[in-house]
Amino acid sequence: MSNNEDWLKSLITKTPQEGRELAITMARKTIGAIQSDPEIKKELREKYARDAGQLIASAEVVALEFQTVAAANNYWK
Amino acid sequence: MSNNEDWLKSLITKTPQEGRELAITMARKTIGAIQSDPEIKKELREKYARDAGQLIASAEVVALEFQTVAAANNYWK
Amino acid sequence: MSNNEDWLKSLITKTPQEGRELAITMARKTIGAIQSDPEIKKELREKYARDAGQLIASAEVVALEFQTVAAANNYWK
Amino acid sequence: MSNNEDWLKSLITKTPQEGRELAITMARKTIGAIQSDPEIKKELREKYARDAGQLIASAEVVALEFQTVAAANNYWK
Amino acid sequence: MSNNEDWLKSLITKTPQEGRELAITMARKTIGAIQSDPEIKKELREKYARDAGQLIASAEVVALEFQTVAAANNYWK
Amino acid sequence: MSNNEDWLKSLITKTPQEGRELAITMARKTIGAIQSDPEIKKELREKYARDAGQLIASAEVVALEFQTVAAANNYWK
Repeated sequence: MSNNEDWLKSLITKTPQEGRELAITMARKTIGAIQSDPEIKKELREKYARDAGQLIASAEVVALEFQTVAAANNYWK
Repeated sequence: MSNNEDWLKSLITKTPQEGRELAITMARKTIGAIQSDPEIKKELREKYARDAGQLIASAEVVALEFQTVAAANNYWK
Repeated sequence: MSNNEDWLKSLITKTPQEGRELAITMARKTIGAIQSDPEIKKELREKYARDAGQLIASAEVVALEFQTVAAANNYWK
Repeated sequence: MSNNEDWLKSLITKTPQEGRELAITMARKTIGAIQSDPEIKKELREKYARDAGQLIASAEVVALEFQTVAAANNYWK
Repeated sequence: MSNNEDWLKSLITKTPQEGRELAITMARKTIGAIQSDPEIKKELREKYARDAGQLIASAEVVALEFQTVAAANNYWK
Repeated sequence: MSNNEDWLKSLITKTPQEGRELAITMARKTIGAIQSDPEIKKELREKYARDAGQLIASAEVVALEFQTVAAANNYWK
């Protein structure tokens, strides 16, 4: 699996913004771990980026990943 | 991606109300990170604002983001 | 947006029952923030109140909001 | 609304089993707060009790409510 | 309701593996609390075990229950 | 059930990356606990790996399992 390289070295980020970007990466990498074919992934991505229900579901995954990243960073307080 | 500017400077807000507004922004920005075309976003938004199931799913994303914001602010106690 | 008044002054409530009511209000206010047209909201509400799947999804949103309210109140211990 | 009586006096229960029952009650009371007509509720209940997807979604709501009840009771340790 | 016996005596388990099994039991018992007819349960179970979407939704419920069990056991540290 | 061997010995992992892989394993093992027939599992897996909605739902399960693993490891701080 091409996604299996060591991409997640730490949950610590300098800023909330970077934490947000990490959360999006985490969500995307899971999709890539289940469906590693780049052609199929591209197709699916085009499809769900135009589907309101699937966009909202994606936003839910990002919200969950961000909960973890934010806690790891003690909310950047 | 036009959404990639540094919009999330802090999770700290003065009031619960502002925390609520931040949670809504966070949910919206994720949608914008996945679908950055303003025309498509507008179309999808009009669609899901009239779909009960998608509205409820959106409210779930906001509830999750607010959990993070509220914890970051120690619940404004 | 008519929902934008300062309705969420605090997460602290006197009793679990009041916390429960606040959680329901929070869920409803998010819907109102996304769809502010009172006619459309009323229509959608009538629809999802008769749809088992959407009722269950609404209950999930309330459960998530209540997690936040309960933590804010240290579970009314 | 007939469900509006003060049914949630405390999140504290004597045993995990009682906590579980409270979580189920919490999920049901939310449904009742949104759809208070007893005839419609009965109909919907019969329907979702035979729908695998809706049963699983109901179990998710109970799992979320139980997270709150269990934390309130410090996991009955 | 035949499921109403006192099956949840404690959230404490000796190992993460046993915690996992408890989480699966918790999810199943909720289904049983809502639909107690053994014939209908068996039918629904056969159906959702062959439906990818419902299997994933079941896995989500187990993940949520396991969050509670794992916290109760202080993550078996 | 062939999945019932003792596969979850600990929630502690050396790195976030390994924690991520454990979260994916946890999600997969739950599916295997509900549907243990290897032929059916393979079929379903092929199906949901091509379905955007089900891929996103799978990513949600992984996000939830990872919340638990990350907390168990004190976020690898």
